[in-house]
This record gives sequence, C-alpha cells and structure tokens, in this order.
Amino acid sequence: MRNRIIIFALLVLFPCSSILAEVSDPLSSWNNTPAKAAIVAFVEKVTTPGSPDFVPEAERIATFDNDGTLWSEQPLPVQLYFALDRVKALAPQHPEWKTIEPFASILKGDMKGALAGGEHAILELVMATHAGMTTTEFEQIVKDWIATARHPVTGKLYTQMVYEPMLELLAYLRDKGFKNFIVSGGGIEFMRPWVTKSYGIPPEQVVGSSIKTKFEMRDGRPVIVRLPAINFVDDKGGKPVGINQHIGRRPIAAFGNSVGDQEMLQYTQGGNGQRFELLVLHDDAAREFAYGPARGLPDVKLGAFTPALDKLAESNGWVVVSMKGDWKTVFPSDAAVSEKASH
Amino acid sequence: MRNRIIIFALLVLFPCSSILAEVSDPLSSWNNTPAKAAIVAFVEKVTTPGSPDFVPEAERIATFDNDGTLWSEQPLPVQLYFALDRVKALAPQHPEWKTIEPFASILKGDMKGALAGGEHAILELVMATHAGMTTTEFEQIVKDWIATARHPVTGKLYTQMVYEPMLELLAYLRDKGFKNFIVSGGGIEFMRPWVTKSYGIPPEQVVGSSIKTKFEMRDGRPVIVRLPAINFVDDKGGKPVGINQHIGRRPIAAFGNSVGDQEMLQYTQGGNGQRFELLVLHDDAAREFAYGPARGLPDVKLGAFTPALDKLAESNGWVVVSMKGDWKTVFPSDAAVSEKASH
Repeated sequence: MRNRIIIFALLVLFPCSSILAEVSDPLSSWNNTPAKAAIVAFVEKVTTPGSPDFVPEAERIATFDNDGTLWSEQPLPVQLYFALDRVKALAPQHPEWKTIEPFASILKGDMKGALAGGEHAILELVMATHAGMTTTEFEQIVKDWIATARHPVTGKLYTQMVYEPMLELLAYLRDKGFKNFIVSGGGIEFMRPWVTKSYGIPPEQVVGSSIKTKFEMRDGRPVIVRLPAINFVDDKGGKPVGINQHIGRRPIAAFGNSVGDQEMLQYTQGGNGQRFELLVLHDDAAREFAYGPARGLPDVKLGAFTPALDKLAESNGWVVVSMKGDWKTVFPSDAAVSEKASH
Repeated sequence: MRNRIIIFALLVLFPCSSILAEVSDPLSSWNNTPAKAAIVAFVEKVTTPGSPDFVPEAERIATFDNDGTLWSEQPLPVQLYFALDRVKALAPQHPEWKTIEPFASILKGDMKGALAGGEHAILELVMATHAGMTTTEFEQIVKDWIATARHPVTGKLYTQMVYEPMLELLAYLRDKGFKNFIVSGGGIEFMRPWVTKSYGIPPEQVVGSSIKTKFEMRDGRPVIVRLPAINFVDDKGGKPVGINQHIGRRPIAAFGNSVGDQEMLQYTQGGNGQRFELLVLHDDAAREFAYGPARGLPDVKLGAFTPALDKLAESNGWVVVSMKGDWKTVFPSDAAVSEKASH
C-alpha cells in the first residue's frame, strides 16, 4: 500500500511514465522473456524468509565476468586498447621498440601483425605496459586513460559501453542483499580504479588476473612495485581458484559469456541448494557485436561462445541470454551515463 | 537523550552495574590508559561528519594480524598444533614417517626435535597435513579439530584464547562503519572456518598464507584440490602485497604484535590523512605469556617483538599496548564464550 502511495505521488509530481517503470520494475531494460522470469524466480526463492530455498544474506554471493558480460569486448578487450595506447605513449623512451615485435607493428598501426605472435605477444605487451611502476602510479595511469579513451568503432567512452540490463541486474541483486563480485580474466588493478563508479562494486570485491608485486621502502615512503612476471591468470579453471582464494565461499549465482567462464558456472552449480547460472550470447550485430561461433555466429579469438559451451549450457540448465531478444536496450543513454558520472 | 532513556530502562530492568559499563563503554576491557584514549580519539576523528579528518565508510579499512594479536600464539602458533595432531591422525597411513623427520620426532612427542629442522621442517609438516584433499574436505577437518582441540598449557579450547579487548575493538570499529580484515601469516583456509563465529569477520575478509589449488571435475562434481606447493606467504613484506591483492585499498588502521607486522604498519601509515597503527606487547606472564625479546622479555622463535621493532614503533608514533597495563581482562570468561557460541 505504501509503495502505491509513493508511486502515485511520484506520478503527480513528475508526470512521466518512465518513473513508474523504474519504480515498479528493477529490470526494466529486460524484455519479458523466460530469461528475465528465471532471474526473478531464483531471487525470490532464495530471499523469501521461510522459503525452503532461503539463503542467509551473508551467503548471497554473485560473481560476474567483466569483458563481454558487463561491458563490450569487441573488436578487442578494452585492456588491450589500453596496452596499445601505453605503447604509443612510452615509445619515445623505447627506441628499440621500432624493430621488436609486437611493438614495431603496434607503432605502425598494424594490430593484426602485432597480435600474430599470439599469447606470447600479448604477454610481452602486458609486461611492457603494466609493470615497472608503483601500484599508486598505475592506478592514476588507468584513471587518466579511462576518463578520455574512446572505442575505435563507436567513438564512445569505454565506460559508456557497459550493458544497461546488467547494471540493473547488479543493482537488483544488491538491493536483495547479494554481494556482487567481479571475477574476470582482465587485470585486477586495471579494473579497480573505475568499477566502483561504473558498477557499484568496491575494489575488495574484484577478482582478476595479476602480475607479481613487491613491497619496498622507496625514499622513506612505503610503496608496492609492479613486477614484470605473471602472478595469477583468472580464466577458465583459474576462476574457481580465484573465487576460493579471494571470497572463500562458493557463489550461489554466476554470470558470464564465454568459454573462459565455464568452470566458474560449473563450480557455482556444484554447491547445495538453489543455484543460478547465466551466459550472455552476443547475437546483436545491429546494437552491439555478433560473435560465437555458436549458432552460426562469426568466430572470434577472444571471448568465444562455442557450440560445445552452448550444449553444456543446455544440458546443465544454464540460462542463455540473447542480447537481441532478451534485452530491450543494450547501452545506457549518453545522458544517463553523464548524469551518473556527475554524482 | 534517547540513549539515556534506554540506559535508564536497562538499569531499572537489570540492576547490575556491568550493563551500564557495557552500554556506555564499548571498550570496557581496556583500562583508561593512553592506548585506549588514542584508539577512541582516532575513531572519533575519522568518523565525525564535518571533521577535517573524516573518512567515508567505504574507505574505513582496518587490518588485523591474527596470531598474537587476536588470539594466543604461545608456546606455538595454533596452526602448528593442528598440524601435529594431523600427523598423529594420519600416521597409520604413513608407516614411513616412523623414520623420516620431522614426523619421527612428532610421533615420539619430541616437539623440539621436530622443529630442529627449522623452516624446512615446518614446510614438510604443512604440506603433509594441509594438502591432498579438496577445500571442502579441509574445511570440515579444521571445523572438527577446532571444536574439540585444547591448548597444551591452559587446557582451554583455542577459541577461548581470543583476547576480549580485541573482540571489543573489532565490534567497536564495525559499529563505527569500519570493515575489519584479518591479514595473517597463518593459512587462509585454516582461519576461514571459524573466524566468522569468533571475530565476526566473514571469509571474504580474510587474507593469509596459502598453498596452490586446482579446479577439477571429480566424478562429475566440481571440486578445488589442495596441492603440496606454496602459493603465497602473507608475512612481513608479503602483508602489504596480500592487502593490495585482496583489498585493493590501503588500510587506515592496522593492528599487529610482531616483526611480521612491521611492513603492514608501515604501509598503512604511508597513506594520506589520519592513520592508526598499534602493536600488542606480550608482557603479562601471569595472565598470558611474556615474550619479546624487547624490554628484557624472554626471546621466542615465532612472534618476536624485537628491540628494533620497539624503537621503530616509538619513532613512528605507533601505539604499543601493554597487555599487563592496558588490558583489564585478557580472555573472555568461559561463560561468555559458551554463550556466544550458542548463538
């Protein structure tokens, strides 16, 4: 009754239909399809006191992949664009890069050539651009970059390429007493400087890949220095390991979009009681990017949703979200983003 | 005004002076010495809205060492007693241990002989007793052990050997909007099964040493297996590294008791704004154990408070708590512990 009075008052004060939708439906960017119904049904079951499936608040852990699940990862994951921009910025201090791959190709603007070296090339790139400074310095570099860098296809800020339906889902779960964690193959210290503002997720709820670090007293100041050596790869089987290491509880809900998320979803499902697993399928070339190679969608190197994963999702009862069919909107409107950023 | 009415009502209903003390003083087990005054002054400064030193709730991170800071660590750290008991329990499956150190000495009850091998012997001991099972199995082993194992000197359950003044401090900080983390040289998965009940700290707020783990599908069930290889040592310079890895923020308050905590306190103090650092000095042979070797106290192998650390504390303005002089009580009464455990 009280909610109805508030809604009525809002309608009188602000005669605008979108307010009613927002008040009454926390997932208003989702179409009324089975995917949305499955999310709501799960959340109601585990949060209704007295329900046989009730889960105490402390155990309501939800884990979210980042690239391709919370924001766009095509044509390349955002962190790679960061690394490419860092190579260009650091090139004057590294004249030798003109003749060493993958740097030579990057500096010529030949991304295909730069990534021809595969994982080794990416590793070289990460070490050259992510190590050698203190954690405080790196945080500032990321903050400066993310505030201005723009997506090569859409021209938007990367933080404008987060998915509105997933932002709503994060807020909905948070309101229902869940603790949301990011569990991403991306760099933990690349994400932390901006995810609180973008997703409402604090730094201590971010799990990701990392390089080694070392404590030092430098000119009498205590600092942590980033070293050019891999510490942990938070992908595939690494995701449950990272979850166990950082969270120490098995999630009751997990959200991903690619083969890198399979083990996280399996681990989540392996616990007792009600569990929920969801994969985002990128089948919307008009509003975002279409890639698989499941269901005849184009193949990609990073972020693949394979036919085998599709089959596993079906046999395990994981919800597969079609961006085209299940999402009313994909990105927040520019106005909404700049309004949020100003708060 | 409202608080006064509540206190008055409590006094009428329960005419017992200890209630007044508890309601009005969240640190009632602390004597009214400069140590207590320093804690309260710091907390008031950073939590008073409008104060120039105000810190938003999200940034109120406090980190606590465990062994010797929150519970007793003498004659040996509790986790070593756990390892010794595991050796005895597993001995029938390992006939070869009768002739291999450190196992042979342990099985003969010769602890001094067992630890003569130093760090290498301890490593052997940890690997033989902490690895080879799933994380779920290990959690159950720890839970079963901690529920019944007793301290060799006092005969108390180990969970009765937590420090009452520190329990009050944890609760006081939590009530003031702080997020308390354990940052311990002890095993992260040895602590998680019992710290929520004992300290009110959830598993995701525990940072510790760890062995490597691996995700596996075992008979169709997703499990994480504990491997006999060191992953991370959360001691000395490892503490700031672990804090950065797990929390991603610099603490504003840090609490320890030994040389293993020095770098954590330095790192905490290195941030901007008001900071607070505290070391517990074990100078109370009558109520607990007396060890240093600072201030002429007996020397110990593990958990040392050295003269150099004492000097550093003085020059840096770190608060040194004398258990003898600053604490009214050391351990919770047995009645209080069993009452708490029953909730």
